Amino acid sequence: MSTVKAYAATSATEPLGPTTIERRDVGPHDVLIEIRYSGICHTDIHSVRGDWGPAAYPLVPDHEIAGIVTEVGSEVTRHTVGDRVGVGCMVNSFRECTRCRNGQEQYCLGGTVLTYGSADADGTLTPGGCSTHVVVTEDFVVRIPEGISLNEAAPLLCAGITTYAPLRRWGVGPGKKVAVVGLGGLGHMAVKLAHAMGAEITVLSQSLNKKDDGLRLGADHYQATNDPATFEQLAGTFDLIVNTVSAKLDLDGYLGLLAVNGTMVNFGAPSEPLSLSVFSLIMGGRSYSGSLIGGIRETQEMLDFCGEHDIGSEIEVIPADKINEAYERVLASDVRYRFVIDASTLA
Amino acid sequence: MSTVKAYAATSATEPLGPTTIERRDVGPHDVLIEIRYSGICHTDIHSVRGDWGPAAYPLVPDHEIAGIVTEVGSEVTRHTVGDRVGVGCMVNSFRECTRCRNGQEQYCLGGTVLTYGSADADGTLTPGGCSTHVVVTEDFVVRIPEGISLNEAAPLLCAGITTYAPLRRWGVGPGKKVAVVGLGGLGHMAVKLAHAMGAEITVLSQSLNKKDDGLRLGADHYQATNDPATFEQLAGTFDLIVNTVSAKLDLDGYLGLLAVNGTMVNFGAPSEPLSLSVFSLIMGGRSYSGSLIGGIRETQEMLDFCGEHDIGSEIEVIPADKINEAYERVLASDVRYRFVIDASTLA
Repeated sequence: MSTVKAYAATSATEPLGPTTIERRDVGPHDVLIEIRYSGICHTDIHSVRGDWGPAAYPLVPDHEIAGIVTEVGSEVTRHTVGDRVGVGCMVNSFRECTRCRNGQEQYCLGGTVLTYGSADADGTLTPGGCSTHVVVTEDFVVRIPEGISLNEAAPLLCAGITTYAPLRRWGVGPGKKVAVVGLGGLGHMAVKLAHAMGAEITVLSQSLNKKDDGLRLGADHYQATNDPATFEQLAGTFDLIVNTVSAKLDLDGYLGLLAVNGTMVNFGAPSEPLSLSVFSLIMGGRSYSGSLIGGIRETQEMLDFCGEHDIGSEIEVIPADKINEAYERVLASDVRYRFVIDASTLA
Repeated sequence: MSTVKAYAATSATEPLGPTTIERRDVGPHDVLIEIRYSGICHTDIHSVRGDWGPAAYPLVPDHEIAGIVTEVGSEVTRHTVGDRVGVGCMVNSFRECTRCRNGQEQYCLGGTVLTYGSADADGTLTPGGCSTHVVVTEDFVVRIPEGISLNEAAPLLCAGITTYAPLRRWGVGPGKKVAVVGLGGLGHMAVKLAHAMGAEITVLSQSLNKKDDGLRLGADHYQATNDPATFEQLAGTFDLIVNTVSAKLDLDGYLGLLAVNGTMVNFGAPSEPLSLSVFSLIMGGRSYSGSLIGGIRETQEMLDFCGEHDIGSEIEVIPADKINEAYERVLASDVRYRFVIDASTLA
């Protein structure tokens, strides 16, 4: 065991503050990573504040981790000391189930071990990436291509894979029309990735405030959803709608924007049930779908794709002691487009 | 114009009765069909009774039509006198839109002309197949393979294509697990078709009353949805759930039966909005989808498939004057599995 520095929440309402945590010894299949950067995901705020159910404290958040390998276990073959690596939302899974064997560890039947707040093999709760070091089994550590700086790479580990997986699943490429609802942490990654895949992209945002950004990031069109004309003009247009907004939407309105056999995919959602008319789906063979991050193999594929296409996240780097302020700014949508904590400020 | 015999509803509440209607002259691209049989679809009852909005009367129902070509227009190339043919839910569409060109006439942007109660090119309302004859443009007339009797073929024109299209779209075949919710007109066709495609089929029905039938038609398993254990035992099982039930269901319960990346597809629905938790979709990459009949090319493909696999509908043939009684029995789910009207009883 080693004691390392971290930032943690001690309750749902207190600000996060500095602390120390224990990391396990490096086992035969483990990798010790010196964390350089960790991104702040909206999920971290929900988790810290117990929005999705009571959390166990102290809770060390962050699951968008980029760093350098500083030690490897005796049996490790995938990584060596000095490698630039990342860790996303998962640090382990059961591995023997059909889903793990299919590369869908995020849906593991035996229970995915999440990067923080999740029961690990030894029964302790996993502390996340807002910390100086982490020990992870090698199979859940991915390589970050040389072309991407570690700070811009960190958010790819959640925001990147979360948007990449459905873009691939629904065959986004040249000739496909994609709408991205919301231009935040997830939305800006969806725009960059879908643009690199060759699709025609429309950002649907509440207002036109971020229009210049959207077009710069790769969108072809940018329309305001507070203008009812948007829903008339774009009816029946999109092969895929990537909905990055968790707030309650007029689902039937958005489903009406889909082309025949089109799909609207969600990553988050309000905790209360949503309402939709099934006729919105039947009239056009449309689908309303969900997607949860992506498997480890696909996360590596996404990083390699980002390396080839020179894609990183748009970030604002902050020291650890600005984390509470950053949370408030995320909640106010006042970030373009991801906060990344410089882990050297934890030391 | 010619005057032919038919059965029609004169209001939402009066019983249907005999009448005469006009059929247009056979134009250069038209086919005159002597109708031999027409199936009774649940949709007919909704339409006649104005359940989905006010109807125009007199209304001649039926859009599952099987008969013999008795005259063809001067330019007709696809059909000849004596051909065994069928007409389904559509008798025309705009044809010039991208959807029609893609063989998706049912989603025509210019407006599909439905087989009954729909504005035709001349402005009159189309009368349906509960009649002795119908004149249809040749492109919306399909061939019925020799191996299928006309009475068992009639229901394929709606119930058959409605279930065939999603089974094909979602790649049903050997190794796929399919659930069919409800063993009625649509459900029994879904079982027969999915069985011929090689899938492993589970019927999910309120009770086990029709279990013997379900297994005889090709289902591998039959489970009662009034038993909560069904939802525990089958959690995460199915690649595709074909939901033929229009009544309100516990959607989250059914979505939980889907395997990773599985889809639940609906053809009908209650008129009030449905409620679901988006987490039911996110946790497993699941989709909730709709589907509306199928295009003309695919309807022909379905009939050819049925010919190869010796598939017809399970029917009860009735004379036209039993139509009102048959409607009541359909509403009471007292039919195995489709009523078909013998058009010779209209003459």
